[in-house]
Amino acid sequence: MAGAVQSGNISKANPMNGGHGLYSYTKNSTYQGKVIVAVKDLIMEAISEKLNSCIISSSNTICVADMGCSVGPNTFIAVQNIVEAVQKKYQSQGQGHSGLPEFQVFLNDHSVNDFNTLFRSLPPNRNYYVAGMPGSFHGRLFPSNFLHIVHTSYALQWLSQVPMEVEDTSSPAWNKGRIYYSSAGDQIAKAYADQFSKDMDCFLHARAKEVVCGGLIMLTVPGRLDGSPHTRVFSNVCYDILGSCLMDMAKMGITSEEKVDSFNIPVYFSSPQELEATVERNGCFSLEKLHCLPLEKTQTSIPEKARAISYHIRAGLEFLLKEHFGHEILDELFDSFNRKLEKSEVFQYGRAYSLFALLKRKPT
Amino acid sequence: MAGAVQSGNISKANPMNGGHGLYSYTKNSTYQGKVIVAVKDLIMEAISEKLNSCIISSSNTICVADMGCSVGPNTFIAVQNIVEAVQKKYQSQGQGHSGLPEFQVFLNDHSVNDFNTLFRSLPPNRNYYVAGMPGSFHGRLFPSNFLHIVHTSYALQWLSQVPMEVEDTSSPAWNKGRIYYSSAGDQIAKAYADQFSKDMDCFLHARAKEVVCGGLIMLTVPGRLDGSPHTRVFSNVCYDILGSCLMDMAKMGITSEEKVDSFNIPVYFSSPQELEATVERNGCFSLEKLHCLPLEKTQTSIPEKARAISYHIRAGLEFLLKEHFGHEILDELFDSFNRKLEKSEVFQYGRAYSLFALLKRKPT
Repeated sequence: MAGAVQSGNISKANPMNGGHGLYSYTKNSTYQGKVIVAVKDLIMEAISEKLNSCIISSSNTICVADMGCSVGPNTFIAVQNIVEAVQKKYQSQGQGHSGLPEFQVFLNDHSVNDFNTLFRSLPPNRNYYVAGMPGSFHGRLFPSNFLHIVHTSYALQWLSQVPMEVEDTSSPAWNKGRIYYSSAGDQIAKAYADQFSKDMDCFLHARAKEVVCGGLIMLTVPGRLDGSPHTRVFSNVCYDILGSCLMDMAKMGITSEEKVDSFNIPVYFSSPQELEATVERNGCFSLEKLHCLPLEKTQTSIPEKARAISYHIRAGLEFLLKEHFGHEILDELFDSFNRKLEKSEVFQYGRAYSLFALLKRKPT
Repeated sequence: MAGAVQSGNISKANPMNGGHGLYSYTKNSTYQGKVIVAVKDLIMEAISEKLNSCIISSSNTICVADMGCSVGPNTFIAVQNIVEAVQKKYQSQGQGHSGLPEFQVFLNDHSVNDFNTLFRSLPPNRNYYVAGMPGSFHGRLFPSNFLHIVHTSYALQWLSQVPMEVEDTSSPAWNKGRIYYSSAGDQIAKAYADQFSKDMDCFLHARAKEVVCGGLIMLTVPGRLDGSPHTRVFSNVCYDILGSCLMDMAKMGITSEEKVDSFNIPVYFSSPQELEATVERNGCFSLEKLHCLPLEKTQTSIPEKARAISYHIRAGLEFLLKEHFGHEILDELFDSFNRKLEKSEVFQYGRAYSLFALLKRKPT
């Protein structure tokens, strides 16, 4: 091994809210959990059709990583689905109980993630061994040829950083008066798209070293249909509303316009074409499947929906908002956000899709 | 893999103080750090003489675990020593840089250990990959044939539980009026010795499954010379003094005698003979080396020594003391402990030894 491995600082960390409080990720990640349920059949199918059992070394252990695991509980459901799928595949090949592989699972997130909460809520009767792997998935995390299956769900939309241009007051892509790209100019949207591409390149470059030949990456990201405008994406509309609440507060003197100008949410909703382009550019993986799944609509009332979304977004963005604006504005911000959401038309015209991609490591 | 793997609850957790505060383990584990420096040469020698490079699988990765890692920084020094020793061995065999193995390190401790502090203080330019492995080392932590090197330092003296007899008021081994075995009756000392043996059996049983044939276990525990009485062990004297402080406080009505009677420190200082017996009973490892190293004396004044020991013991026992007696007695307890320590003769007649054992997994 030449020199030092990554120090984990190549990507800005934006940990989801830890612990078990009102605005914790643990209590406000039902939506991400639904996505994991929604792709379960795709994962079963992927492993059944595409995993070659000969990829496992003599130790008879399958190494699985969930990247961007946050604090649970969704990561445990995802891991359980993968373990079950592999066991089913082995059983269908006539392997008895003693011939089944063992599983070493790695739950990965930034080193500032609340691993204490994660470790204290591990499922008690799990049929896999589990470790926590701290560090940015935009760089190397594991030794070469170490992993058999990589899973990541609703994590790769987080950019490693806000694109520099959008915070540069001298750039034509400076994002004045907004905190997001979706209803901003083309140059701003392009800066975000480029950052997403760069981040995906880093992610795939690192995984190409770590994943054994024949190994699988199953990734799910929130996205949009090819050709669909950014302004139709449900979450994008929500982020725009959040931005307008911040601007209202700036006008009231609760925060400043400069503070709003210099804050941008480091998230990007990609299209299938964009995702496919990154895999092709990398060249080490074959794209075996690519699905675009619409969100199942919930049958709750608008106020209930608005509250759930408000909590959901707070669990994900509180760290960044607090860091930039101070914690004292948070309650008022999310009260105002909640009220605007209720009155908005996002529930009518906002669209939410998940993109699911299955990648297989090509032989070297 | 048959059924569920361990849930990590088979052993009572006694986490060292987390964080970076005055009584944190991070700030009060200089002594444990000195031990790691003291055994460095033994570790270099062990790896140089006893590690066969053919034990590594095709992935060219050496899997190393440090069991009972706590919150750092000592675990990082220990790991670095091991990595350097292996690299040196490979280089001495004429391997160039590209032929060197990669290292996947696992830092293990109970799931209630402060992994957040550990992960946030990882050395930035480390030349190994590192994961945290939550769970009790008295049970299975890893898949079969997965580890090449296991290291554990100053962890195995912690018992998985207080021996039941010493807390049973109807037993002849009931430890009334004391919190430790060293100056108690033979039956109490025997109950502690038996618990240590049982725990070592569990530790070795689990490691025998996890360590590849030819793999090494390097363990360091605080101990005593064969035949040396428990009352001569430096730490034992300290624990007796701590017990007498608690009894003083019971007499003053600050706590109760019943509370002291039902509290016992789950720590045991073993002898080389005892350690050797556990390895022989297990049968899966050959005992390649066994050394008894005396503690290097420090040249500080008695008050300085007393204060350092008081903080050191508080960092290790605060969790248990708080749980049993409540946090409000802690400052007074350790003030009184510090005063008694200064006046005691422990610095003259107390003896401190570390036992270092090198075990090699026999072929199956």
